[in-house]
Amino acid sequence: MPNPITSTIDLDRDGLQHGFLKIPYSRNDSAWGSIMLPITQAKNGDGPGAILTGANHGDEYEGPIALQHLASTIDVERIRGRVIILPMMNYPAFLAANRVSPIDQLNMNRVFPGKAKGSITLLIAHYITKVLLPMCDYVLDIHSGGKTLEFLPFAAYHELEDKKQQQACEAATLAFAAPYYISLVEIDAGGMYDTQAEKMGKVFVSTELGGGGTATAETAQIGKRGVHNFLVHTGILQQAPIEPPTPSIKLDMQQDNAYVFSEHNGLLEPCVALGDPVSKGDLIARVYSTERTGIDPVNYFAASDGIIVGRHFPSLIKIGDFMNVIARVIQD
Amino acid sequence: MPNPITSTIDLDRDGLQHGFLKIPYSRNDSAWGSIMLPITQAKNGDGPGAILTGANHGDEYEGPIALQHLASTIDVERIRGRVIILPMMNYPAFLAANRVSPIDQLNMNRVFPGKAKGSITLLIAHYITKVLLPMCDYVLDIHSGGKTLEFLPFAAYHELEDKKQQQACEAATLAFAAPYYISLVEIDAGGMYDTQAEKMGKVFVSTELGGGGTATAETAQIGKRGVHNFLVHTGILQQAPIEPPTPSIKLDMQQDNAYVFSEHNGLLEPCVALGDPVSKGDLIARVYSTERTGIDPVNYFAASDGIIVGRHFPSLIKIGDFMNVIARVIQD
Amino acid sequence: MPNPITSTIDLDRDGLQHGFLKIPYSRNDSAWGSIMLPITQAKNGDGPGAILTGANHGDEYEGPIALQHLASTIDVERIRGRVIILPMMNYPAFLAANRVSPIDQLNMNRVFPGKAKGSITLLIAHYITKVLLPMCDYVLDIHSGGKTLEFLPFAAYHELEDKKQQQACEAATLAFAAPYYISLVEIDAGGMYDTQAEKMGKVFVSTELGGGGTATAETAQIGKRGVHNFLVHTGILQQAPIEPPTPSIKLDMQQDNAYVFSEHNGLLEPCVALGDPVSKGDLIARVYSTERTGIDPVNYFAASDGIIVGRHFPSLIKIGDFMNVIARVIQD
Amino acid sequence: MPNPITSTIDLDRDGLQHGFLKIPYSRNDSAWGSIMLPITQAKNGDGPGAILTGANHGDEYEGPIALQHLASTIDVERIRGRVIILPMMNYPAFLAANRVSPIDQLNMNRVFPGKAKGSITLLIAHYITKVLLPMCDYVLDIHSGGKTLEFLPFAAYHELEDKKQQQACEAATLAFAAPYYISLVEIDAGGMYDTQAEKMGKVFVSTELGGGGTATAETAQIGKRGVHNFLVHTGILQQAPIEPPTPSIKLDMQQDNAYVFSEHNGLLEPCVALGDPVSKGDLIARVYSTERTGIDPVNYFAASDGIIVGRHFPSLIKIGDFMNVIARVIQD
Amino acid sequence: MPNPITSTIDLDRDGLQHGFLKIPYSRNDSAWGSIMLPITQAKNGDGPGAILTGANHGDEYEGPIALQHLASTIDVERIRGRVIILPMMNYPAFLAANRVSPIDQLNMNRVFPGKAKGSITLLIAHYITKVLLPMCDYVLDIHSGGKTLEFLPFAAYHELEDKKQQQACEAATLAFAAPYYISLVEIDAGGMYDTQAEKMGKVFVSTELGGGGTATAETAQIGKRGVHNFLVHTGILQQAPIEPPTPSIKLDMQQDNAYVFSEHNGLLEPCVALGDPVSKGDLIARVYSTERTGIDPVNYFAASDGIIVGRHFPSLIKIGDFMNVIARVIQD
Amino acid sequence: MPNPITSTIDLDRDGLQHGFLKIPYSRNDSAWGSIMLPITQAKNGDGPGAILTGANHGDEYEGPIALQHLASTIDVERIRGRVIILPMMNYPAFLAANRVSPIDQLNMNRVFPGKAKGSITLLIAHYITKVLLPMCDYVLDIHSGGKTLEFLPFAAYHELEDKKQQQACEAATLAFAAPYYISLVEIDAGGMYDTQAEKMGKVFVSTELGGGGTATAETAQIGKRGVHNFLVHTGILQQAPIEPPTPSIKLDMQQDNAYVFSEHNGLLEPCVALGDPVSKGDLIARVYSTERTGIDPVNYFAASDGIIVGRHFPSLIKIGDFMNVIARVIQD
Repeated sequence: MPNPITSTIDLDRDGLQHGFLKIPYSRNDSAWGSIMLPITQAKNGDGPGAILTGANHGDEYEGPIALQHLASTIDVERIRGRVIILPMMNYPAFLAANRVSPIDQLNMNRVFPGKAKGSITLLIAHYITKVLLPMCDYVLDIHSGGKTLEFLPFAAYHELEDKKQQQACEAATLAFAAPYYISLVEIDAGGMYDTQAEKMGKVFVSTELGGGGTATAETAQIGKRGVHNFLVHTGILQQAPIEPPTPSIKLDMQQDNAYVFSEHNGLLEPCVALGDPVSKGDLIARVYSTERTGIDPVNYFAASDGIIVGRHFPSLIKIGDFMNVIARVIQD
Repeated sequence: MPNPITSTIDLDRDGLQHGFLKIPYSRNDSAWGSIMLPITQAKNGDGPGAILTGANHGDEYEGPIALQHLASTIDVERIRGRVIILPMMNYPAFLAANRVSPIDQLNMNRVFPGKAKGSITLLIAHYITKVLLPMCDYVLDIHSGGKTLEFLPFAAYHELEDKKQQQACEAATLAFAAPYYISLVEIDAGGMYDTQAEKMGKVFVSTELGGGGTATAETAQIGKRGVHNFLVHTGILQQAPIEPPTPSIKLDMQQDNAYVFSEHNGLLEPCVALGDPVSKGDLIARVYSTERTGIDPVNYFAASDGIIVGRHFPSLIKIGDFMNVIARVIQD
Repeated sequence: MPNPITSTIDLDRDGLQHGFLKIPYSRNDSAWGSIMLPITQAKNGDGPGAILTGANHGDEYEGPIALQHLASTIDVERIRGRVIILPMMNYPAFLAANRVSPIDQLNMNRVFPGKAKGSITLLIAHYITKVLLPMCDYVLDIHSGGKTLEFLPFAAYHELEDKKQQQACEAATLAFAAPYYISLVEIDAGGMYDTQAEKMGKVFVSTELGGGGTATAETAQIGKRGVHNFLVHTGILQQAPIEPPTPSIKLDMQQDNAYVFSEHNGLLEPCVALGDPVSKGDLIARVYSTERTGIDPVNYFAASDGIIVGRHFPSLIKIGDFMNVIARVIQD
Repeated sequence: MPNPITSTIDLDRDGLQHGFLKIPYSRNDSAWGSIMLPITQAKNGDGPGAILTGANHGDEYEGPIALQHLASTIDVERIRGRVIILPMMNYPAFLAANRVSPIDQLNMNRVFPGKAKGSITLLIAHYITKVLLPMCDYVLDIHSGGKTLEFLPFAAYHELEDKKQQQACEAATLAFAAPYYISLVEIDAGGMYDTQAEKMGKVFVSTELGGGGTATAETAQIGKRGVHNFLVHTGILQQAPIEPPTPSIKLDMQQDNAYVFSEHNGLLEPCVALGDPVSKGDLIARVYSTERTGIDPVNYFAASDGIIVGRHFPSLIKIGDFMNVIARVIQD
Repeated sequence: MPNPITSTIDLDRDGLQHGFLKIPYSRNDSAWGSIMLPITQAKNGDGPGAILTGANHGDEYEGPIALQHLASTIDVERIRGRVIILPMMNYPAFLAANRVSPIDQLNMNRVFPGKAKGSITLLIAHYITKVLLPMCDYVLDIHSGGKTLEFLPFAAYHELEDKKQQQACEAATLAFAAPYYISLVEIDAGGMYDTQAEKMGKVFVSTELGGGGTATAETAQIGKRGVHNFLVHTGILQQAPIEPPTPSIKLDMQQDNAYVFSEHNGLLEPCVALGDPVSKGDLIARVYSTERTGIDPVNYFAASDGIIVGRHFPSLIKIGDFMNVIARVIQD
Repeated sequence: MPNPITSTIDLDRDGLQHGFLKIPYSRNDSAWGSIMLPITQAKNGDGPGAILTGANHGDEYEGPIALQHLASTIDVERIRGRVIILPMMNYPAFLAANRVSPIDQLNMNRVFPGKAKGSITLLIAHYITKVLLPMCDYVLDIHSGGKTLEFLPFAAYHELEDKKQQQACEAATLAFAAPYYISLVEIDAGGMYDTQAEKMGKVFVSTELGGGGTATAETAQIGKRGVHNFLVHTGILQQAPIEPPTPSIKLDMQQDNAYVFSEHNGLLEPCVALGDPVSKGDLIARVYSTERTGIDPVNYFAASDGIIVGRHFPSLIKIGDFMNVIARVIQD
């Protein structure tokens, strides 16, 4: 049974085309309705292919901003090869301003390679895997922290068995020119878009550019610059790269005890900021009761040395929630 | 008919007491239930009274953090007079992590002086007006932007007809020692806690300390320092004030065209950051379509000179939403 | 403006009639719809009038059962005067199986005498006050604990300024022949059906017959017997009363510290049962954490002597919830 | 792919430990959040293992009460072997006060042995099956009727092919010392925790101790006594058993026509109580219309002889709902 | 306190202007947000004023279609005087595709003259009453049946005490040229827009043009023609009227027993169509059980002679729902 | 594992029986509850079997009306063989007045042949496939457009590989005698009831008889006549067929560009009616903005010649929604 998604643009045609991936979605409020996922392709002759995606998680905005910017300004004359742009990859989640799809409650980054017969998120993942990824050599997937996490802005590549592929990924990551970059070892990579693309031999770059359900002027700028530089690096975009204000700093998040989780419900007072250096044993946060006054807060301490790279964003925290992650700065 | 709220602590007694305002609330899931709003009082002999409140809007967190900190650390021996602490003033809204109460959908800062017979938010406002405010001379109400707004951190007082009262408010505002401060003219002050307290002759200080539904290490610190300094200023707390890292800068938000609102639904790209200087005509934001690619964004421009003091926080924006406010820096 | 409710039965006509109070209710799912509140009248010549009501709170079932039983079995030949039966007084709340109306969230027993222009609960209360109560001399309103409370079965009358009226109420209460009975002093009687009927000079009897959102074979039987005996007592029903298995026991709930409320959220272990005798200081309940194991429960103790008359029904309890009420048995 | 659940306590260590099973649960309101399922282990040298569970259905409370009591009072010095305590097995359902999990709508007692990759309820079942059950020889799973059913308190074992295993189960059931006990033949045992544990050769005891979404002082006491006696019976707890007030009575629910179901929507009047003896043809309930008055109720009759062992709890009943079950008392 | 609504267009200026009524609406998802209600004004020198409105009930579509058509095609050169167009009067209800506002659950046609301080629907009604109506002499309010009713298309005027005003209304109603027209006597006109405008001496025309939550090509055409002809009739639009295919037929809905309501829940089989002639006693509908098969349906009969003018639209019907209305055709 | 559904009627018995398919459904509000799906069987000796179904989609009403009519009027004496009637096939969807089941969100016509272990919709499909279809030779499944689509009334059969079977289907389709009929080629027939029945060799007829979530007097009549004629055609019902007012017209929907979909959100003005002839390039609809006035609508044009056979029903339309389908009339 074939995937029911169709494209309203002709992916084999040269030129700049804006349209939709049309995903049939029969439901109570539209028996013969469809979800229309916006897509842009700029294609110009032979050359490598790149696919750029945002909103893999629907509440992460640097990707959609940078890619809507690109889609409305890209000059197909300067392209050699193909650029596919999906600014809002998990489109139902994006419209709902949520991490996961409101239709099937699925986290798109856990369902790859998707299925040709299944719920909406599975169909989208399958179409990308079977139709779009094979047309491309380079993949850039722009994440940020979403409504509940916030990160120092970084780009990342994975440690891969194929070291040549890994080097290509690292080079593309550096080209993105985020303030920080990281080499990741995924413990459980099952279902990730990253893993799927890497398995297919693609040069894959991921990012975390901010968070909290907002983009700032600064993180939007990092995203736009990164997209431009990534495309220049691939050789597809015939322009000069944009120089970042400072060189990328390398971080290591693989150390023991890097992650701190809350074992209490309450009101979170952060005692250290993103980017702050901490030593093992430093107070990093207090959790106050939301039920009564006059109770001592629970104190949380750093369990490793480094700088604060990520934090829980909302001021209310629940038992089991991520609180902070600490990374070491790698000196060259 | 008397207000049905009762206090589980004896407000006439000296000493440090932690307890609840008990608000009867009969409902489907508890026929004889109550809302228990946490309250702390530190009282020690004669002297002025101060009431400190947070979460007037339930999604603003610097106040609850600073006041839960104070309630768990306050030393009643150092008090002369009375301090009443309500860290979570609109408690149902705070528990729901929302601006307004989930019970009656009311914005607490629009319902003062409240009513003795009415819905929960009205009862709380009435109890504060009739029971707590008369015990106090000083009032500090700590706001920030909440989930949908973000501000440069400032303290504020109102321009009042009684200039002596206004001067006392200005002095207390400066004592708070936020990075910025503002003198406000409210156009529609109906129902505000500020207005009610000012009418009763109180020295009133308000703040906006950040926003986005989070507190940072920095804004929490500003709140804690401000609470301490405010209490020292009143003469109630017998301690030295804490020096801020930089002196407070005075801002003016009364100029024409300071406010920019969106007339489009879409994805917001902020082009200037909080604190950035702008001139009339500068591009401050773009709004992209969320329906399709390839459409030029709508550009929004500054309509006055100054610095960006407030911004819309979520990356999705709707027709009619506030986008930015620009203030002039007042040079001494 | 007149109350828009109309009756589909002719209240002035003799005989047994079953029909509806038709309450216009324009809404999204029925622009010209109505709520049809079931009503029965048995009328036979001159004589006193009685109105019998159940489901004043929608999750209390002994009233609806006893009155549906009466409505389907009443023999109008044995009636002298008038019996009006509203088995499901707050009908929208009853259909939703909730204490308060799902339409306007109102507790019917707090809105009397209602309003001719207002939301559905107000309209019903107003119609009863202005149309039905004036036709009647006796009023029986059958309550029980609802989903969140459970009581020993008792009938009750109020202490009234008019002692003759009070005596008539007491006599009717005793006629009901519940296992227990109580003389009540309401502290806040505003908006109660009881108060409204008493103000109009009616002989008023109320009950609490069980609770937990269920009726048992026993409590249903108490309700059916009480309704029969009440009607016989009024002289309207020409039959013999039904003897109860045991004489009614008088209780006093006016003592100090009769009520125990929870100041903790958690899992409730009741250590005493309804009807158990307790002495001041006895352990009556424990509240366990629902967040973790290994924490000592909070113990709650009786603050007065007597027997347990009412209890919190669900096993999860919240801060502010009623836990128990203790009454003294009055020896003759 | 391994089950992502981890334990915050070291199950191999001797001593009394309280902690959590940490279940990663990425979602809109916590991207890197977890469900923290409370667990206690008391371990002391060699000896048999027992696992005790409550809230397999989240609205059944005797188990959580008896096991929170045990977890906060257990003396590890009196233990020989291992006791694992999960007072709230389907923890999300328990927190929601519902039978099934609000996350995946799954009934935990239909999903065993679970899955290592799946929704939350499947993960918990799988972890119990693969990690905890292999550490144990005895399994006690405490059920009661939940919000919609009520039972006479009984313990039960299943008829098994392995008669020796069955005898061990029967002995442990009798040790529990509930007022009643039953030998069950499950017609469809697919997915039950019982079946899984029995397949693995464990001595398994189940119970039904009450219902209606509440625990009474009596049923809580039955649960606590049963847990104690069960542990003493296993030889793990070195204490004397607690004598029940009356010996357990054996019931038989396998007879024809034991179950009565409603074929009408309406208001249920129970005409017989739990424990009442009935003969075939006796009136057991009436169902009244909730739409109108003056309609004869539908009468329901016993279809077999015996005593009433279970009943529909809410007073509103729907077509297809269980109404009553009748069991025979087995005379020795 | 003034109404907080402001207009983004200058109502005193000549020319064609499109803009918004800006209604401040602070809420959880936008602290400083507004509802932007679309408005168009075409003004050209002196002359009478007309205000044209649709979606007074948010699920009635002929008005919005005809008025969006007018707003996008109107030629201000052909105007003498003023035309104010509000295609979507209860804009929140329209966006929700519901009869009443999702914000305050209010039916706009029951709240006139509104309030300057109140919920959104009250504010809109007040602004129309105080600002817009005084600028106008003619008022056209286009209704249809909405999602739950369907009507033969008619225009209508009210019987007024001022017979000269009534004649002007009748003349304007005839000018609209709907297939049918009616003279209405409102029994309860409290809160209607009609009543408010008539009290202020305006020439007021209302309509019912179809229903069921849809507009057809035919009813949209009737609406567009009626708007055109109404404006020509007022003398504001300098164009020729459009001739309808057939002359308007006069109906009388004031007869006894014109309305039939359902006293049963069930599945509705209509036995007569809109426009069909019926005689008293004719079968007009059957109501089948939705609970079981094999039950005779309840038959409903006409209680008067005439033609079917209105009907319940959904196939499921509830006790108390309107079923049909029958009108007499008035022969000239 | 067997399908847990049981029938309360004995399908092997001759005579007219009304009862239920009992589908066990344990859930929060009824731990031991069932869904009771109404079923009727009329059986009389040997002869062919027919199964008649309505509400395969829960918001389509001609089927339920025609089949409830049949079930309450069928004369078993006139039957030769067997008629099984399921007026409300997806019963949970029907009760919710929705296309898909509110329990599992499944579209029944995409899940055949169902599963013996699965969610409710799967169980029903499986029971029909395994138990009911094998008893029958003829299958009639009555659809209409539901709440969001509207069609000219037609009956339909599929083009099948077995041409003899196809001819039998065509003959039965013609016997139904709808105003129009169609021969369908399904592109994706996976999971359809049609496909399943056809695979099993049954004579299968489907219909679309109207839509919009309502049945009219006319479409109800078409349904009732069609059911009668279909049964007469099968030889099971020993009566004369009912002559339709006009002969069935054959339509062809297989042409290119027959379907028009919307690529805009907005307010839909239909410019052509069901049954109207159109030529390629004709204006068929306009879509107006719902955000502002003064914007030109988007015009949609016919892309093929023919008559309008189906249309989007609600007046609000979304990107991706079906707008119209155009069919050619086949002249004999």
